[in-house]
Amino acid sequence: MLNVQLLLTGNELMSGDIVDSNSAMIAQNLAEIGVAIKRKVTVSDEFSDLVSEIELMSQQADLLIINGGLGPTVDDLTAVALAEVAKLEIVQHPEALAHLTDWCEKRNFKLNEPNLKQTMLPNGCEVVPNAIGSAVGFKLNINQCDVYCTPGVPVELKLMLAEQIIPSVESQLPTVSHHHVSRYQVFGIGESSLQKLVDEQLPDWPEDIELGFRASMPILELKLTSKTALAKLNKAKWLDKIRALIGDHIVGEITDKPKSFGEHIQHLLRAQNKKITFAESCTGGMLASAMTRISGASEVFDASFVTYSNLMKQNIVNVSPQTLEKYGAVSKETVIEMAMGALDRTQANLVVSVSGVAGPTGGSDEKPVGTVWIAWGEKENLNTTCLYIPGNRYYFQHYVTAISLDLVRRMLINSNEIPKYLIERQKA
Amino acid sequence: MLNVQLLLTGNELMSGDIVDSNSAMIAQNLAEIGVAIKRKVTVSDEFSDLVSEIELMSQQADLLIINGGLGPTVDDLTAVALAEVAKLEIVQHPEALAHLTDWCEKRNFKLNEPNLKQTMLPNGCEVVPNAIGSAVGFKLNINQCDVYCTPGVPVELKLMLAEQIIPSVESQLPTVSHHHVSRYQVFGIGESSLQKLVDEQLPDWPEDIELGFRASMPILELKLTSKTALAKLNKAKWLDKIRALIGDHIVGEITDKPKSFGEHIQHLLRAQNKKITFAESCTGGMLASAMTRISGASEVFDASFVTYSNLMKQNIVNVSPQTLEKYGAVSKETVIEMAMGALDRTQANLVVSVSGVAGPTGGSDEKPVGTVWIAWGEKENLNTTCLYIPGNRYYFQHYVTAISLDLVRRMLINSNEIPKYLIERQKA
Repeated sequence: MLNVQLLLTGNELMSGDIVDSNSAMIAQNLAEIGVAIKRKVTVSDEFSDLVSEIELMSQQADLLIINGGLGPTVDDLTAVALAEVAKLEIVQHPEALAHLTDWCEKRNFKLNEPNLKQTMLPNGCEVVPNAIGSAVGFKLNINQCDVYCTPGVPVELKLMLAEQIIPSVESQLPTVSHHHVSRYQVFGIGESSLQKLVDEQLPDWPEDIELGFRASMPILELKLTSKTALAKLNKAKWLDKIRALIGDHIVGEITDKPKSFGEHIQHLLRAQNKKITFAESCTGGMLASAMTRISGASEVFDASFVTYSNLMKQNIVNVSPQTLEKYGAVSKETVIEMAMGALDRTQANLVVSVSGVAGPTGGSDEKPVGTVWIAWGEKENLNTTCLYIPGNRYYFQHYVTAISLDLVRRMLINSNEIPKYLIERQKA
Repeated sequence: MLNVQLLLTGNELMSGDIVDSNSAMIAQNLAEIGVAIKRKVTVSDEFSDLVSEIELMSQQADLLIINGGLGPTVDDLTAVALAEVAKLEIVQHPEALAHLTDWCEKRNFKLNEPNLKQTMLPNGCEVVPNAIGSAVGFKLNINQCDVYCTPGVPVELKLMLAEQIIPSVESQLPTVSHHHVSRYQVFGIGESSLQKLVDEQLPDWPEDIELGFRASMPILELKLTSKTALAKLNKAKWLDKIRALIGDHIVGEITDKPKSFGEHIQHLLRAQNKKITFAESCTGGMLASAMTRISGASEVFDASFVTYSNLMKQNIVNVSPQTLEKYGAVSKETVIEMAMGALDRTQANLVVSVSGVAGPTGGSDEKPVGTVWIAWGEKENLNTTCLYIPGNRYYFQHYVTAISLDLVRRMLINSNEIPKYLIERQKA
């Protein structure tokens, strides 16, 4: 297997002033051709550190991608450091000069001294064209390792990877790769519970299909990676076994990028020609916002209410004062009346209403912080549940929003399952 | 100088499935006490790689922070790898067990086998409490290097840094530092504009006060770092000069952690004993959610409306059909009627109403995607503006929400300034 390593350079990366997204981009591009990065090192623009890392990494790796440090300022030391390790002179590269001259002419820029620095490269290196920026990339073999030096500007790097580096690496790979990744969205089962289920129920899980997770709030990502030709063929079968274990906790397959609940529900509502509305207390607008963040919301959503105070629950969604007096704002009776009021006012087909104690204040013995009543469904088919979701306010609001939308999703796909969270979180 | 290194572990980091923001967080927290990270290494969850990196890094560094790999799954190997390097046994740590038991009880979870793995730590290590998650952090001295093992979940890491690690590292720093950071929240002026203003208007800016920025949506963070005793004394004077340049674009000083607009406005409203309501179209609940995310919202907020369709603008906040017919939904007349309707229905003192074209569809020549009308103020003192905020839907919704709340903030502090965005973004 190819030993691939990544060296990132830049003071701004070390200080935390910017978040490094380039290495994720490089890793994703390599993953598409079945190549994994073994090790990644980040250093500041300190010459001696750069030199020693390049020396060490080129000894270990078959392929080393260096990112950053190609720019025009004194901080940009990649070329000089590489020349030092390779014991080569730094010379003006004619191809790099031609590129820069052309680049400046096209933009009506005067070629200046700092820019010229970008044409000074280790003698004998191969230029890697940069379709956008002024600094070319370059490639050199040191210690039997192919070293690519790439620009730190994300759009430049992206094009260079797609057009130059990935095709070149792929052409050197020994055989066709069997590496294949499928990804799924899972809601309502945590990483450890899912791992435990697989361990217990599927003890013969094959070694050449890797089960991975990516925790992301609120929807977990489940990843199946096949590593052999056989595994690639068998993967669907093993996925079916997972489906048998967790059913509709699988929200969907990720084909492009992960979808939010708002997207899933908009899609389902549109297909069924239905509209939704909300009457929110403790989520305070988060449910409405989850729907309207997604373009096309107007086809499935007309209006929504945030009724935070008791008086507004009465005046806006017609909860009766008697109900509030007798059962309180956080009650089955109140969320039912909120839901009915919102349906009446908007003529929507579906509704979610929520009323709970988000905290940190406002809890009581009977209704502690984390208690929430949810009503969801249609006028003639309204369900309710009372859940207990302790934790902080942020977690509570986001999780109540996610559960509410998942309950709607399950209704829209006619699921008969009882989701795990309704069993575990239900308040006695 | 302290040699500080950072080791990140996780297949998901190497595969590019997630972008690493934790190391930026760690770097920023260390920077506040004048400590820089020298080197950062990222490896996958491969036991032998982890062991060799920990061995090497602990030999080089005085302080090593390991992030990730504390979870319940088989991938999570940090504790075992550390024990291997330190030649210690892995044992069940009573403090970690007590934490986990308590954590599960509070959440009504049954303690399962995978979770118990999180209590198995190198014998003799010191537990570092985790205020949120189930896995504690821990600390160990190996090869005369203090090694901290921290969780990969950002919110957990954040609290652990603030409450445990940074204070502990700071207490070990050799001398009293003159390194002193003041941070301010700035809204409505970008990083490069602000830098240019300072360069042009304050050419004698002192070398020993570093001006730094941290871009964060929507509020920019401005950082003044003094590096000498004199600079520390002079800093207030230079801050006043910046204040003279950008006035109320400074939202406030950051004393603890950055405040959201929701927090700022809740504070101002409460002091003035006022309540606010919203009538939202294109922001679809985001304004209400910005207020209700903050605990204590019920003191300043009773109710709010999302009126997405024309019919709902009529039925719920009393916009007249004639107004919609004659001027359209995205118009001065409509946002004024939406605002008045929301005030009438809720009896709030203040209101914001917004109607615009969030896109990507729905634009016209006259009202292209990015056009938004905002009304804000009180019944007898209602202002309106029409802005043009192109970009994608995400940016549009968040920026319109931020600007709306900033306009309310400026009204509540009786600011007479015209903010830069009203000049630059105003539609002719």
